Amino acid sequence: MEPIFAIEIKVLRSRGNLVAQIHSQLSNAILQGRLCSGTPLPSSRLLAAQLDVSRNTVLQAYARLQSEGLLVTREGSGTIVASIDTLLPHIATTANLFTRISPHWQHNKLFAQQIPAPIEFDFSMGIADTSLFPFALWRRCISRQYRKMETRTMEIGHPAGQPGLRKMISGFVSQSRAVSCNPEQIFVCSGAQQAYVLLAQLFIKPGVTCVAIESPGYPMARRAFVAAGARIFDVPVDGEGLIVDAIPPEVNMIFVTPTHQFPTSVPMSIARRAALLQMANQRDMIVIEDDYDSEFRIGAQPIDALQTLDSQGRVFYVGTFSKCMFFDIRTGFIVAPEWAIPHLATARQAQDWRNPLTTQLALAEFMQTGELRRHIFRMNRIYEQKYDTIVATINRIAKGILTPTLMLAGVHLTLDLNQKYSAQKVCNDALQRGIKLHCGSEFSVTPDIPNQLMLGLGRIAQHNIEPAIQRLVDCIR
Amino acid sequence: MEPIFAIEIKVLRSRGNLVAQIHSQLSNAILQGRLCSGTPLPSSRLLAAQLDVSRNTVLQAYARLQSEGLLVTREGSGTIVASIDTLLPHIATTANLFTRISPHWQHNKLFAQQIPAPIEFDFSMGIADTSLFPFALWRRCISRQYRKMETRTMEIGHPAGQPGLRKMISGFVSQSRAVSCNPEQIFVCSGAQQAYVLLAQLFIKPGVTCVAIESPGYPMARRAFVAAGARIFDVPVDGEGLIVDAIPPEVNMIFVTPTHQFPTSVPMSIARRAALLQMANQRDMIVIEDDYDSEFRIGAQPIDALQTLDSQGRVFYVGTFSKCMFFDIRTGFIVAPEWAIPHLATARQAQDWRNPLTTQLALAEFMQTGELRRHIFRMNRIYEQKYDTIVATINRIAKGILTPTLMLAGVHLTLDLNQKYSAQKVCNDALQRGIKLHCGSEFSVTPDIPNQLMLGLGRIAQHNIEPAIQRLVDCIR
Repeated sequence: MEPIFAIEIKVLRSRGNLVAQIHSQLSNAILQGRLCSGTPLPSSRLLAAQLDVSRNTVLQAYARLQSEGLLVTREGSGTIVASIDTLLPHIATTANLFTRISPHWQHNKLFAQQIPAPIEFDFSMGIADTSLFPFALWRRCISRQYRKMETRTMEIGHPAGQPGLRKMISGFVSQSRAVSCNPEQIFVCSGAQQAYVLLAQLFIKPGVTCVAIESPGYPMARRAFVAAGARIFDVPVDGEGLIVDAIPPEVNMIFVTPTHQFPTSVPMSIARRAALLQMANQRDMIVIEDDYDSEFRIGAQPIDALQTLDSQGRVFYVGTFSKCMFFDIRTGFIVAPEWAIPHLATARQAQDWRNPLTTQLALAEFMQTGELRRHIFRMNRIYEQKYDTIVATINRIAKGILTPTLMLAGVHLTLDLNQKYSAQKVCNDALQRGIKLHCGSEFSVTPDIPNQLMLGLGRIAQHNIEPAIQRLVDCIR
Repeated sequence: MEPIFAIEIKVLRSRGNLVAQIHSQLSNAILQGRLCSGTPLPSSRLLAAQLDVSRNTVLQAYARLQSEGLLVTREGSGTIVASIDTLLPHIATTANLFTRISPHWQHNKLFAQQIPAPIEFDFSMGIADTSLFPFALWRRCISRQYRKMETRTMEIGHPAGQPGLRKMISGFVSQSRAVSCNPEQIFVCSGAQQAYVLLAQLFIKPGVTCVAIESPGYPMARRAFVAAGARIFDVPVDGEGLIVDAIPPEVNMIFVTPTHQFPTSVPMSIARRAALLQMANQRDMIVIEDDYDSEFRIGAQPIDALQTLDSQGRVFYVGTFSKCMFFDIRTGFIVAPEWAIPHLATARQAQDWRNPLTTQLALAEFMQTGELRRHIFRMNRIYEQKYDTIVATINRIAKGILTPTLMLAGVHLTLDLNQKYSAQKVCNDALQRGIKLHCGSEFSVTPDIPNQLMLGLGRIAQHNIEPAIQRLVDCIR
């Protein structure tokens, strides 16, 4: 049979969907330029006859091409190939969109990146010691939840978290931190970091809200508040924690780490806590209390949380499972006044909906066994032993050079360095000799940088502490 | 022995840490009011002798109490209990912090909440059909990764995603969507929603950036841009998708769903795509292309993605595994110009660090087996069969009342409703009779609401389609 137009169309019944077959061959021919703009198409009747398909099939393929803009109908000349000259620009100039990036993110410095240098003694902060974590039990919990997953995959789930997990967390914080709350006050989120982001979303009006944060303080919390458009006020910290009297009058939101000040390790004194809450009440402030590693006690019971002392529902308490379990669980929580939960939920949904249900359910089951509590108890002794060994070694070989700050809880400790030496130089020198640790300048944006070194207790093994401290002291002297 | 002051202190050597024991008993006594403000403490020498501990032990306990603000030293009178009257405010007035909430979140309406009414026929949108998902294989992948977890729990991980997964995704999108990119252009995030949030973080300057979004369009994308402070322009959609000519001149960022317009289902015509890119180039715009369910084709090959047609690197392509796998995987991705990745990474880190490594590695392994591709192939036929059944049933019993819009891809379809009837009323009536479906007004903020019904293909079983459509038509007439 005579071809009815420039290109050959083949239809195979065995491949199903005839409309699709015709459509794709025609659209390819148009896009590749084999059918030029203006080319008339054969009538549907003619093409149907040639291909031995129903006329309706051809009409459907034409209709689809038309709605895609590849065919147009012209009075008199029937259906023709549309003009698609503008489709592929030939000169590819690459856009410079960098200038469009918001000032907050024009830098691209990640926090706490892994060090390329070889590390023999690792005092990195923020990483839990997982050597004794009951992974076998955790795997059983997670596997059981994955087996039940089929029936659950169509669930949307609530952004505030799975009810069973919220109940377990409310029991957990009231037992471990005397934070009294009911399950309806618990908001499950993706780590402490997302807690800062959600509270920033809720309460920060860009350019208006004034947030006080500790200096030195936690840079990632600062980033969350800066990104939300807050005006930041860096308030100094001393041996009693945040200096409440130094909070400027315009501040109406405070971020604070009272149990184990990040990074100086000191607990906020009870007098300061009282003063902070009094100021918050007087000035109608919102207080974010980050209790990131308070499960681990050095010696005494830590002081009551601000949340416990607060009588007005101003304190939003943030906790995390990164330290008492492991970082990859990506689960944290907020203890909030109950009225705030639906608002947090709406904000969370617009962030990324919710935490994975499977992980939430596995965590609830894991907590239910009591094994988290036992793990914390075990690890408490491990961390305390590491802490004691560091302090004893320092007292033996570095008295007058290094002095541990007071701490009641937490998984890193802070050492005051004799002013004769520079903490930053020591930190750099130590890295050259295979010791990773931290210094005050990493956490300060104000000029009054404390001459301190910070040692995380998660990655260093007990038997490495003495040689590590020995070498560190060699780096100083 | 004569008690040396009002309270009794007991020390048990078997319980370890003597400092902590002394500290906690004293601090409790002070906080409970048993030791009043001003009470002098015995000298360290005296207390040490009485408790049979070293003087240093007592001094450490005192020092801790002092740093907590519970003890003070007075010239002449030695160490006395501090004044802590301000500690516990007696009148508990509850703060009204609601007025402090940013206007975006003063509402608390969640999107796509589960319906309390009993649903017999469920055409909910946005939920994948997981009946044929190879859960056994997925469980094997995830279990294997959980077994390897011990060695990985101390890894910080890169916010852009695990390299192996980025590689698999770049192969996946170039195969399924002809989106050509290298693994360094892939950014892994927590679902498509977080992709919007991160791009909003990067490019929206509050009160300045003008974002065009489709109307009707995807409400959750709108919420992300509103929350970031964008000025929103709702641009109408017709049978060829977003009406490019209707984009106001001040717009410099566009959010668009070209493959399967949400919610009207129409594909954006090639002419419109070309016009959109041309406008983007002329006006230096950023284009966010959301290709949320394009893996599933109805009939023909879908039109090329904007990302494929873009020669200037203006298009940020967003994809998700929620539809081709299941929602709970909470994994999506951005295909971005390579220069933008480090900035996205910095922004992501401040959001919630990164996706769980375990899930990332399991997903990479799962994709490596080829089973995702086979699952999509299988599901394509399932969805196409559901689609065909709906269309055939409508053509048989509701011709002139309901008319499917053109669609080339996706897991929901859209029906134009005869103007004699109200889509919103039909939707409500249907819900009363056990049918969950959607209508145009749920996705429109502008007055020109399309009189359309939307039917998700995920939750409805094939054998239920005919009776469901039958009942729906009964609701209309």
